[in-house]
Amino acid sequence: MPLIDTDVHESFAGVKDLVPYLKPPYKDWIAAGAWRGFSQPFAYTSPGNGNRADVTNPDGSASVSDPALIKRDVLDAYDVTYALLTGYFYPTGLKMQYGLASAMAAAYNDMVAEKWLSFDDRLRGSIQVNARDPEAAAREIDRMATHPAMVQVMLPVVDDIAYGHPYYRPIFAAADRNDLVVAFHHTVFAEGPYGMGLSYMERHSLIPLAIMGQVISIILNGVFDAFPKLRFIMLEGGFSWLPHVMWRMDREYRQGRVEVPWIKKLPSQHARERLRLATQPSEDISNEAFLKVVDLIGTDELLVFATDYPHFDFDDPDAAVPKGLPEELRQKILWKNAASLYGFDVPGAGAVAEAAE
Amino acid sequence: MPLIDTDVHESFAGVKDLVPYLKPPYKDWIAAGAWRGFSQPFAYTSPGNGNRADVTNPDGSASVSDPALIKRDVLDAYDVTYALLTGYFYPTGLKMQYGLASAMAAAYNDMVAEKWLSFDDRLRGSIQVNARDPEAAAREIDRMATHPAMVQVMLPVVDDIAYGHPYYRPIFAAADRNDLVVAFHHTVFAEGPYGMGLSYMERHSLIPLAIMGQVISIILNGVFDAFPKLRFIMLEGGFSWLPHVMWRMDREYRQGRVEVPWIKKLPSQHARERLRLATQPSEDISNEAFLKVVDLIGTDELLVFATDYPHFDFDDPDAAVPKGLPEELRQKILWKNAASLYGFDVPGAGAVAEAAE
Repeated sequence: MPLIDTDVHESFAGVKDLVPYLKPPYKDWIAAGAWRGFSQPFAYTSPGNGNRADVTNPDGSASVSDPALIKRDVLDAYDVTYALLTGYFYPTGLKMQYGLASAMAAAYNDMVAEKWLSFDDRLRGSIQVNARDPEAAAREIDRMATHPAMVQVMLPVVDDIAYGHPYYRPIFAAADRNDLVVAFHHTVFAEGPYGMGLSYMERHSLIPLAIMGQVISIILNGVFDAFPKLRFIMLEGGFSWLPHVMWRMDREYRQGRVEVPWIKKLPSQHARERLRLATQPSEDISNEAFLKVVDLIGTDELLVFATDYPHFDFDDPDAAVPKGLPEELRQKILWKNAASLYGFDVPGAGAVAEAAE
Repeated sequence: MPLIDTDVHESFAGVKDLVPYLKPPYKDWIAAGAWRGFSQPFAYTSPGNGNRADVTNPDGSASVSDPALIKRDVLDAYDVTYALLTGYFYPTGLKMQYGLASAMAAAYNDMVAEKWLSFDDRLRGSIQVNARDPEAAAREIDRMATHPAMVQVMLPVVDDIAYGHPYYRPIFAAADRNDLVVAFHHTVFAEGPYGMGLSYMERHSLIPLAIMGQVISIILNGVFDAFPKLRFIMLEGGFSWLPHVMWRMDREYRQGRVEVPWIKKLPSQHARERLRLATQPSEDISNEAFLKVVDLIGTDELLVFATDYPHFDFDDPDAAVPKGLPEELRQKILWKNAASLYGFDVPGAGAVAEAAE
């Protein structure tokens, strides 16, 4: 009897096997490793893919798994006083198997403490958590907060979690009782209102919206009121949108605050007092416009600097914070505001502060 | 034999039946009709619910189904030269039964033409479509564009459609060949990056993000380049976020435009030339900040005025566009920019323009 099998799966070693069959420019993208398969939702078209083209290990790999790279390219290259390690491995992305996610967060924290925080005393750490199990995240925060160089909790921005929801209060409570800052950073899962967009450029232009959504969520759902000492930093989500978000929330608050009786201050006041935004990636903006935006934000103590090392859109501190800004504002952005946020002791700060006056 | 039925559904006439059992302040919300059941995803806490408290028909109902209301409260009250009817019934919201949705759009257009556009020659209409069937939407645009008072296509902002996707090109092509403006307006289905939010205030603060996502989508996916004459207006989504969105897209474009070879201009240039934003709802913003935002946008021809009648957050033209602004800028926002966008012939425009100089 004949036999017909209607489902046999052939395969290939990887998408690079398709290079001979691809047309330009896509042939070059895949040949350069811009996309490695469906575990990565888009192709990077920058020369070093997601990273700077010059970031490579001795074995040719491009991950920053050696603290010496950060020492060479950041700490020593720019004479950095303190650098916040923020990682880019956020187990909250896992939507199933929450036990595994929490275990990986703990393992990652132990690795950072052992391998990185001990490497150079200019490094400070972020406690990674699995936010999808808030009680477990709170226990992990309590466990790691005993490490003197762990200064903040990292809340990853994924596609479905707005952290203002009452589900997540145990995480903020743990950060609060351990005197930690709460940092937000997007992940590969972050989306805009209609998903991830249709190009890396669109997706990257939508990241600030994912951050705006978090600011609106935590302020309007009362996280700032429930924890009056807690402070928040938004990383890599831009900053020039803040005036709009403050003005819009203030208008909504003036006309509809009966609905949110737990909010005791104007949303803009909450933001100015306890929200901090990192400047990276610097926008395509003139000195004059930069100053106008700071003026519209209403305080010069809100912006802090970040390089985003080792990513391809790395901000050089000498270029990203324009030299044409008033010296005191540059100093605030480049270190003073962050020193105040994290309570860092900066050697010679008194002398520098005086020189700037 | 005994008989046990384990599933019998009791019911009630409506949520008002719960008023005697509710605690304050929620008792008052439901008693006032702020929420009418799950077909409405949130409760309105403003005195007139979603509408102005003074908007009622002779029979006590609050819908604006009588053109005389618009004549009384808008056209005559403020001596309006032209008013754009934008509706608030967007069949694209229907996620199934696309034939029904397209039929309802057509019926609505015929009703508007018969009942509203013939009522007062200061009224202009928007062609409603079912965007989920782009070819059918294009046919409906061709059908209705023959009406001389239909001046734009209304694209409703729902939770899952970013109009830059190639699916939707037939709609833009139809608007283009009929010399129509393309207008965007949120619907009750619009969401931010994490859904609708947890309060009406949060949801309303997220509407601008839904609009930003559309601007980013249509510019970065090449709609502006594919249809070089087409112009776009975003309604009710704020405006002070535009500098940020332009600067961010421009940075992304400078570093990654290899990915989007169809974009031939800086995104900010596209926006300045052919994007228009309505000012309603006016933000909680000073005259001085308003002027700074216009300066950062880089053109005074981009903003147009709207009241958003009959909604509770109605903008009075005498209050929403600050009297302290330069007279020429006020004139541009209050009528000149819209007259230019829609090609309206404004009686006495020459004289007014001269007086302003």
